Amino acid sequence: MKSDLDALMQDRRLDAILVFGDAEYNPPMYYFVGGGHVSSALLIKKVGKEPVLFYNDMERDEAARSGLKTVSFSEFPMTDFMEQANGDMQLAVALNFRRIFSEFGLSGGRAAVYGRMELSHLFGVLMKLASVMPELELVGESGMDSTLLRAMETKDDLEIARIRQIGAVTTTVVQMVQDYLTACDVREDEVLLKEDGSPLTVGDVKSKIALWLAERGAVDVEGVIFAIGRDAGVPHSVGAPEDLMTLGKTIVFDIFPAEKGGGYFFDFTRTWSLGYAAPEAQSLYDQVREVYDKVIENLDLNASFIDYQRMTCEYFESKGHKSQLNTKAPLEGYVHSLGHGVGLNIHERPWSALTAAGDNLLKPGVVISIEPGLYYPDKGMGVRIEDTYWVRPDGKAELLADYPYDFVLPMKKWKKEVGSKK
Amino acid sequence: MKSDLDALMQDRRLDAILVFGDAEYNPPMYYFVGGGHVSSALLIKKVGKEPVLFYNDMERDEAARSGLKTVSFSEFPMTDFMEQANGDMQLAVALNFRRIFSEFGLSGGRAAVYGRMELSHLFGVLMKLASVMPELELVGESGMDSTLLRAMETKDDLEIARIRQIGAVTTTVVQMVQDYLTACDVREDEVLLKEDGSPLTVGDVKSKIALWLAERGAVDVEGVIFAIGRDAGVPHSVGAPEDLMTLGKTIVFDIFPAEKGGGYFFDFTRTWSLGYAAPEAQSLYDQVREVYDKVIENLDLNASFIDYQRMTCEYFESKGHKSQLNTKAPLEGYVHSLGHGVGLNIHERPWSALTAAGDNLLKPGVVISIEPGLYYPDKGMGVRIEDTYWVRPDGKAELLADYPYDFVLPMKKWKKEVGSKK
Repeated sequence: MKSDLDALMQDRRLDAILVFGDAEYNPPMYYFVGGGHVSSALLIKKVGKEPVLFYNDMERDEAARSGLKTVSFSEFPMTDFMEQANGDMQLAVALNFRRIFSEFGLSGGRAAVYGRMELSHLFGVLMKLASVMPELELVGESGMDSTLLRAMETKDDLEIARIRQIGAVTTTVVQMVQDYLTACDVREDEVLLKEDGSPLTVGDVKSKIALWLAERGAVDVEGVIFAIGRDAGVPHSVGAPEDLMTLGKTIVFDIFPAEKGGGYFFDFTRTWSLGYAAPEAQSLYDQVREVYDKVIENLDLNASFIDYQRMTCEYFESKGHKSQLNTKAPLEGYVHSLGHGVGLNIHERPWSALTAAGDNLLKPGVVISIEPGLYYPDKGMGVRIEDTYWVRPDGKAELLADYPYDFVLPMKKWKKEVGSKK
Repeated sequence: MKSDLDALMQDRRLDAILVFGDAEYNPPMYYFVGGGHVSSALLIKKVGKEPVLFYNDMERDEAARSGLKTVSFSEFPMTDFMEQANGDMQLAVALNFRRIFSEFGLSGGRAAVYGRMELSHLFGVLMKLASVMPELELVGESGMDSTLLRAMETKDDLEIARIRQIGAVTTTVVQMVQDYLTACDVREDEVLLKEDGSPLTVGDVKSKIALWLAERGAVDVEGVIFAIGRDAGVPHSVGAPEDLMTLGKTIVFDIFPAEKGGGYFFDFTRTWSLGYAAPEAQSLYDQVREVYDKVIENLDLNASFIDYQRMTCEYFESKGHKSQLNTKAPLEGYVHSLGHGVGLNIHERPWSALTAAGDNLLKPGVVISIEPGLYYPDKGMGVRIEDTYWVRPDGKAELLADYPYDFVLPMKKWKKEVGSKK
């Protein structure tokens, strides 16, 4: 939680955290500022002090809305250094940063740099800052285990409320998709039809998802996975827009919307087969469901997240599938990790990969996805089930948005013929 | 254009461009890959060679869709270096990059780094790469004038077609907003009402804008400015969601949507006053319109964009307003630049600021916004008019989406009373 930040900074011997960039779609800045149209800003968080936000005058009202201590960049004109920098803009910015840091009591020590933004210019500036201010060590922390990700790892009640709310939006939209698909007419070759009689494509379904999310104040800014058949068998294949929606094929529907403006995410997956299922797909589904239930039943406060990944690998290997336990980078079977933290980043601490550090624990306050899956692209099928859970302070893992686990979705206007060869 | 890239790289003595991050919402990677769900990728563009895209196995289908030469990261496992790196993940990544670069013929020289992504981890990796591979100079180019921004500055026909298309979406949605607002009922205190009889807010209008854009495959990922009254007088104030829509106040509606997935932008602004206008607001509007027309009439092929900014400042100062010509960082009057390039970045070359370099020219192929404005927050008013133009190879500046310039929008169900004190 944010209240852990000073202690975490002390653990890492950080004197300051420096965050660059916009407040929107930039998790480190959003975490402090709370979003809004504050662009090309700088935030200085010194250990033991309140953060200070530097903004551009045109965005003074938006900056003020953050509730933070704010300072206008116009009090520190970069142009003061253009002569000294001999026209080198990046050097002038670096010299200006040195002045700002010094005036705010940061004249040396260790400062971690953060911010989701275009790298090129800032990289040039920071290299120049390092040379004009060698007494300040600029630290680029690991993307898996930074000080900020450690603070973000556990959520407070307000954050949980927001994640729960985006979860409710998510399952509402999933239900709308299910209702829409199962109400479609079906052509003789088992292709679903739109209202106008033309074939329904993956692209059509995705447009509806984007629309239904937007209506509810959410965005699928990271995309949505809606993949059928072979694409369902490749975990991160998002689905080819031209693919036709067809009965009897596995559909992996992985939806991870965020609050508009780059706020909190939710992560959710269901796998469906419309009308009927191939027996082999049903068997994969049953196995994924079984290990999912087993993991959920066994979630323990402060246990290692990685232990559940191992449990999942062992279960799948006992059923004859490959996994990362004994195969390096498998392309079929169980090919990914069990889950991850969910927050302002769609993927964040704690991690569950077998190679992750041992301190990825189910601490009170973490929000995690649990998402076992099996993938056989060459057989044209894939299965994943995913929900998002909150590990409460009382130790219970609470499902943040529930939704049925039906695999075969009956079609309202279509029935399997008796004696059909399918 | 992309075809200029090798010559531009030679001008800057660059042996390579290195792009990091996802293909979506990351302009440098999008420029090469064309979007899609390719995450945490690496692209190497050597001078005189075709680019090579390194991808993660789970996204092999998406990577293949780019049409580029692709290589799986699984051929270069980072784990090969974990022992040598003594468990330091960033060092292992840096050593792995050194191996990849060497195998692809980049064992030294100058390489510019690019990519919109979280800075912290990559900054750490690049610092370590610089120390294990000192023969490769990593260059962070200016965000105003990088090699890639110079290539992107002029657009080919396909890019123009895409910008024109998003422009058509933009003006369609603006028309829908105009139709919606002018059809509203009006309360006695001149507040607009929703269908259910409650007051219409800025937040309500913005939700509709997001929805109507999503229905058309566009996103307002950078936000939309819909600001009334005092907020209209602060150029980048996006508008407070709780503000009530009211007659007779200036409304600055600046909409800059992009293609879904982080593609091309469009940039467009109209200022409206519903029902009637305050005489002072009308006078500001007339001045903005006059200088807008003057600029458009005078746009010349290969002229300096900055000259038009100077022309605009001089015009506004002749009318008694402050501008950047004689006032440092004015907070009222004409407070910003005339326009900017528009492409995969909402703001890109060419630039028009008085402080911009002299080579920001209206070259054939540039796409620019023209957006003069006047702002008086303390008087509760602001005005801006903005359109996006393409400077064609034949020298004509072509408006990429047209829309009427009405300032006062008559309300369908409301008429100003004769003898009203307004």
